[in-house]
Amino acid sequence: MASCSWAENILQLLRKMNNFYLPGSRRSSCFRFEIEGAQVGWIPPHVASLLARYPDVFSPPHQGAVTLCHSLDSYEKRSEAVSHVVQALRQEPSLTCLKGWRDEKYSVMPRFADCPLMWMERAATSLFGVKRYGVHINGYTVSDRQEVCMWLARRSHTKQTYPGLLDNMAAGGLAAGVGIKHTLVKECQEEACVPAAIAKRARPVATVSYTYEDEEGVFPESQFVFDLELPLEFKPRIGDGEVQEFYLLPIDKVKELLATDDFKPNSAMVVLDFLIRHSYIDPDTGLWVFAKCPHLKNRLTALVLSLLSFQSHTIRTL
Amino acid sequence: MASCSWAENILQLLRKMNNFYLPGSRRSSCFRFEIEGAQVGWIPPHVASLLARYPDVFSPPHQGAVTLCHSLDSYEKRSEAVSHVVQALRQEPSLTCLKGWRDEKYSVMPRFADCPLMWMERAATSLFGVKRYGVHINGYTVSDRQEVCMWLARRSHTKQTYPGLLDNMAAGGLAAGVGIKHTLVKECQEEACVPAAIAKRARPVATVSYTYEDEEGVFPESQFVFDLELPLEFKPRIGDGEVQEFYLLPIDKVKELLATDDFKPNSAMVVLDFLIRHSYIDPDTGLWVFAKCPHLKNRLTALVLSLLSFQSHTIRTL
Repeated sequence: MASCSWAENILQLLRKMNNFYLPGSRRSSCFRFEIEGAQVGWIPPHVASLLARYPDVFSPPHQGAVTLCHSLDSYEKRSEAVSHVVQALRQEPSLTCLKGWRDEKYSVMPRFADCPLMWMERAATSLFGVKRYGVHINGYTVSDRQEVCMWLARRSHTKQTYPGLLDNMAAGGLAAGVGIKHTLVKECQEEACVPAAIAKRARPVATVSYTYEDEEGVFPESQFVFDLELPLEFKPRIGDGEVQEFYLLPIDKVKELLATDDFKPNSAMVVLDFLIRHSYIDPDTGLWVFAKCPHLKNRLTALVLSLLSFQSHTIRTL
Repeated sequence: MASCSWAENILQLLRKMNNFYLPGSRRSSCFRFEIEGAQVGWIPPHVASLLARYPDVFSPPHQGAVTLCHSLDSYEKRSEAVSHVVQALRQEPSLTCLKGWRDEKYSVMPRFADCPLMWMERAATSLFGVKRYGVHINGYTVSDRQEVCMWLARRSHTKQTYPGLLDNMAAGGLAAGVGIKHTLVKECQEEACVPAAIAKRARPVATVSYTYEDEEGVFPESQFVFDLELPLEFKPRIGDGEVQEFYLLPIDKVKELLATDDFKPNSAMVVLDFLIRHSYIDPDTGLWVFAKCPHLKNRLTALVLSLLSFQSHTIRTL
């Protein structure tokens, strides 16, 4: 039954995107990355071993934490010293994430509301489990008959991450010192040729947060989600080459696709959140119910709950 | 500056409603409550001591878990045996939560999607840290000029919990075997005299989850949230006496009130979620910005993040 596999696939997606907080993860063997006594990330053991080569920058692990040396007592000093280390680590064949060097500075701080304590090259953040923030835009249309369609992008085959997969119409990371709305307008213009006057109509509606790990490191992320209703006659166009094609799809088709391997995983969560907020997932509905037992009428509801409850679990690194 | 204190009050609310997962909670001293090898709750030490008096029902704590005796191998047997214990515990003066006896059966299961393993009296669930589910309805109006107002209820002074506080227009707990939409329609009718034909238009839009502890026990809860746009001429009326008065307030006034002690805390979170989804909280806005440092433009954004990231942190007890 197709509906069962949809539900199962979505649960699997949510688990995968939050695997750092599930049993069996490397969390218990990771070191806390602390600056000025506050945690700003998670360092996996294999990275900690490499950092031990730079005793002028990193103090040896102590009580489960890796810290910066005391002499690095300012934003500039920390950023510069760590940048040198990360540059040197590009020679390490095991650190494949550094192959995707971006030349983009990301802010490092305990919580989003706190003052940044340093910046770090984007490609290195997963080695230190530093939280990354981004913007995702749900571009959609509503017909005269109130039928909703969503614009999806097919990522370019040359993208460093998730090449060729389906994605939100536009999305991008939040670089150090750049505002959220500014990033939104920029990404809409660059990736999808959406004029600023239209992009500015996007409405802030949610954040989607998660923490996963893979062989490259730890990825705690929060995405600021915007809904942008587009004029029926408007068509996004390929801009900076990060997208190879745009599709306008009925919402039921989008729902089906987001449970497949063809969708970039975090963007699938953003679309799932859209479906929940726009009432396309009814907690009681029997439509996709997976009735293993007579008491069980709410398989789908569990998904709704799962999505929201699987949000980032580290209060400390909000 | 009033805006600073609004932000501070909201952060305090979110922390209070998730204090079980914050440092300093009793979590590390609680026992897992397990049935058939799966965790269904958290039992505080003082409750575990009392349960030790009933060795025919509860096995002694072992490896951090309290379990039911092997002979209790069915839904009915477990429910009946625990019910007898809980009835006897009503004599314990220290268990004040049992003074608010409800005669309402709540389902006990590891996750919402799982088959219930037993039922438990609603007033006893916090002693066992069993997760409770409910329904909250945001009743609101949209004027011809697109101005949004929200209907709030003032709880009766005779309510067992949070007497006299502001609340959503209607809300209620999910009793064993009762559907979500059914509960919604029932609560709208009983508490606010909303006809079923209108209540059924309510749209499922979110869940709000949290886990707090107080001297009475542990409260993991998930609320199914519905938005119900009401006709401008419609006025809710006092029904079963759980509400003493209804107010129709401009959304700015509601925003102000939800950061005060006059609002039932979990309902304030539901309204905060409404404000986020309906774009009343802009991540970049300077309106309530709390600019302690030049880098910090996003205090309010942190609140948005906090709300969503502070969702229930126990994947196991979803």
